Amino acid sequence: MDILSDFLLRFLGQLQSPALTFLLGGMLLAALGSKLQIPDAIYKFCVFMLLMRIGLEGGMEIRNGDALAMLLPALIAAVTGCLIVLVGRVVLAALPGVRADDAIATAGLFGAVSASTLAVAMVLLEEQGTFFEAWVPALYPFMDIPALILAIVLANVYLAKKDHNERKHVAVWAIVRDSLRGSALSALLLGMLIGLVSQPELVYEQFYDPLFKGFLSVLMLTMGLEAWARMNELRKVAHWYAVYAALAPLLHGLIAFGLGYVAHVLTGFSPGGVILLAVMAGSSSDISGPPTLRGAIPSANPSAYIGSSTSIGTPIDIVVGIPLYVALAGIVFDI
Amino acid sequence: MDILSDFLLRFLGQLQSPALTFLLGGMLLAALGSKLQIPDAIYKFCVFMLLMRIGLEGGMEIRNGDALAMLLPALIAAVTGCLIVLVGRVVLAALPGVRADDAIATAGLFGAVSASTLAVAMVLLEEQGTFFEAWVPALYPFMDIPALILAIVLANVYLAKKDHNERKHVAVWAIVRDSLRGSALSALLLGMLIGLVSQPELVYEQFYDPLFKGFLSVLMLTMGLEAWARMNELRKVAHWYAVYAALAPLLHGLIAFGLGYVAHVLTGFSPGGVILLAVMAGSSSDISGPPTLRGAIPSANPSAYIGSSTSIGTPIDIVVGIPLYVALAGIVFDI
Amino acid sequence: MDILSDFLLRFLGQLQSPALTFLLGGMLLAALGSKLQIPDAIYKFCVFMLLMRIGLEGGMEIRNGDALAMLLPALIAAVTGCLIVLVGRVVLAALPGVRADDAIATAGLFGAVSASTLAVAMVLLEEQGTFFEAWVPALYPFMDIPALILAIVLANVYLAKKDHNERKHVAVWAIVRDSLRGSALSALLLGMLIGLVSQPELVYEQFYDPLFKGFLSVLMLTMGLEAWARMNELRKVAHWYAVYAALAPLLHGLIAFGLGYVAHVLTGFSPGGVILLAVMAGSSSDISGPPTLRGAIPSANPSAYIGSSTSIGTPIDIVVGIPLYVALAGIVFDI
Repeated sequence: MDILSDFLLRFLGQLQSPALTFLLGGMLLAALGSKLQIPDAIYKFCVFMLLMRIGLEGGMEIRNGDALAMLLPALIAAVTGCLIVLVGRVVLAALPGVRADDAIATAGLFGAVSASTLAVAMVLLEEQGTFFEAWVPALYPFMDIPALILAIVLANVYLAKKDHNERKHVAVWAIVRDSLRGSALSALLLGMLIGLVSQPELVYEQFYDPLFKGFLSVLMLTMGLEAWARMNELRKVAHWYAVYAALAPLLHGLIAFGLGYVAHVLTGFSPGGVILLAVMAGSSSDISGPPTLRGAIPSANPSAYIGSSTSIGTPIDIVVGIPLYVALAGIVFDI
Repeated sequence: MDILSDFLLRFLGQLQSPALTFLLGGMLLAALGSKLQIPDAIYKFCVFMLLMRIGLEGGMEIRNGDALAMLLPALIAAVTGCLIVLVGRVVLAALPGVRADDAIATAGLFGAVSASTLAVAMVLLEEQGTFFEAWVPALYPFMDIPALILAIVLANVYLAKKDHNERKHVAVWAIVRDSLRGSALSALLLGMLIGLVSQPELVYEQFYDPLFKGFLSVLMLTMGLEAWARMNELRKVAHWYAVYAALAPLLHGLIAFGLGYVAHVLTGFSPGGVILLAVMAGSSSDISGPPTLRGAIPSANPSAYIGSSTSIGTPIDIVVGIPLYVALAGIVFDI
Repeated sequence: MDILSDFLLRFLGQLQSPALTFLLGGMLLAALGSKLQIPDAIYKFCVFMLLMRIGLEGGMEIRNGDALAMLLPALIAAVTGCLIVLVGRVVLAALPGVRADDAIATAGLFGAVSASTLAVAMVLLEEQGTFFEAWVPALYPFMDIPALILAIVLANVYLAKKDHNERKHVAVWAIVRDSLRGSALSALLLGMLIGLVSQPELVYEQFYDPLFKGFLSVLMLTMGLEAWARMNELRKVAHWYAVYAALAPLLHGLIAFGLGYVAHVLTGFSPGGVILLAVMAGSSSDISGPPTLRGAIPSANPSAYIGSSTSIGTPIDIVVGIPLYVALAGIVFDI
């Protein structure tokens, strides 16, 4: 009883976070029919700033620190990404009115990772003074890429079977390459490289780090506006997508939280790292995932997977998921 | 005599303000045929930053303070907005070569408020250490919306009479709703809401507030470039628009200054607040006003009202009006 | 021997600079096929920020200081710009497969100046605490405009001879006017004017100066992406352009370094100023030069001159030239 009320208090306290308010504010404005728009160039620049900042910090940390500790969490990230896709493929495809290729694409997007959701959680932990290893955001591609590859492989297997053809050749390396070439992962990896080989401390401290929170608030507002606008697309497809999109983020986050806890016990993975791992698992890709899937599974309906992810999955992970994992960590790790 | 020279000295001192220099610099560049352009996405982002900053500050202030003191100034703001439209409708329409619906639309734009002009005045007062209640910028919609509504009502009445039809139904609530949905008021009100219900102090102090002055300088430059470019449009319409646009801002500002002085005597409304009220009254809407009027009074000629406002009204209010009200306040309130 | 190893050490040390890493990182991403793009509006805004910052600082410095010391360096800048064009015209046109009007346009672009390259060098010197007179960046137009004018005059003379016509009239004043009206020089000169006549210290210290390095890193990344993309255009023209573009920047830089050294001996021109003069001479115009040349020498092939400049000339000047001049200055001036 004490634990429950403690949990609820912690959970409610998290809802005061400005990042969440900007997201909800954007949804509110869109719902009320506001004409406010953040120009696309600004949105793209916000995303670039966040990823470059996360990358630079990760790179500088790896340069100064030890990267071996990343091994187990990276493995957990990859396993979680694949698990999400497999479970999603089976569960979603079994629901009435859901086509199998749409189900696979949706599961792929939920297995992939949203950099902006990750950034929200990082800012929150930093503001609360909760420590996490600076290489944790670098776990992103370890979850993102396997999930996208597995989804595309499953889709090709399904389509080949449906056409009574032999199994089509799936170019795994081409998918890896396309994922790494996507604008989100490119920026993140370039930031890490620059952090590793150069000395970007000054530009990091004077530009990328101080502007991080501000651009994140602009990004959250944009995502809120977008989430509401996409809701219409979701209405065109089976309602089961909405159910999946509302429940899956929390389930995925809790699975990753559990696996992260194992890493905490085995190798001392930080509680902050466990929270971020859960946030990544609960998130669904909003920048590079959709175009990758559109190219690789052209038969799937974008209204199904983008609608589920942008208009329900992401808000749920940010508004419910992040406070949930933080509150849970507060009790589990007694912080 | 002493008062006059004191006034002139104060007035000239204000002309050194960088915001004014950027505005005049933009006009100079455009006049010399410079190809410099500020991308539209950047312009829109500057406007968003200013409004969000003003809104956040207002919201945080109302959360921490007392909003009852707003009542009388809000009433004065609404009365001033309507007065400007009524006087403008009568005076402008009486001038030779001026069509009545163009006159009403122009008067509506001059009754509405320019957020960027307001921001210039706020920065100036802050730099000079002149106090104003942080809710003063929140008076904006109280002047803006009634002025736009009254102008649209007057235009419909005029058009109905002209067509010998019965009075057309004017959807007042639709106009209020459209005004609130405009990008400028949306951003301002969202900022206030977030300031009220959340704790955006960190993002305000690290992002919106420190970048405010800089983005304002970029905005002033853009407005200067635009002001000169619009001058050509103004040449296409009756020259009386130029006379109105040059004199009306100062007259409107002085009316609001007088009414604000009454509020100062009655309820202790701050001298800084009186200056800002005068600046708002002297300004004409440059962001959300023109599209609202274009939609609601399609028969009016945009060259007339946008040309008057952007190329003469706004520069006059900023370059002459603001220094005038500051110098006047210096003498009237002995600050 | 000691001098050589000292030089090499200094040279290698410069390669750690983040600005260079962002440039190389952009080239690497483009080479690997990354889809990362910096929106055009952001690129233009970065350029504007840099030029306004450089201009404001120059203007404030001239206001506070003495501008007479500029005379000799300004003369050297103009002479260097013209020398580059004359030598380039003779050398390039003598190479096999190179058309004379393409040669002249390319030489003109290499005689003109790149503001972003200049900004990289300024940040580097500031980080290392190497002093330079704040009016040094204001030497920019003294090298840029004569070079462009001379190139256009030479092209017209050549085309007139080829057509067996009498010498065409070359509108020198029109070229000067067009150069000054270009977006780059407009922003720089407006910044200087505002720095001179107004008091922009606050907006400079809170906005333009602290954001300078950050926006420069974004600009370098964009230029790196662009440099690689332009490489394809260069492949379409004679390979001698690549040879010229690789060697000319260093030769031009060393000529300017030598002339700057004379000014150092005669009038005490600072070592930092000599370095910046060399960087300017080594740079080729990337913003306002190409459209000016395209308009004035329409018969020249843009693939030749833009390809040479953007994809080889600029990276060489930044990655090899700047460290070279800094290392050289370290030895020559014993700093």
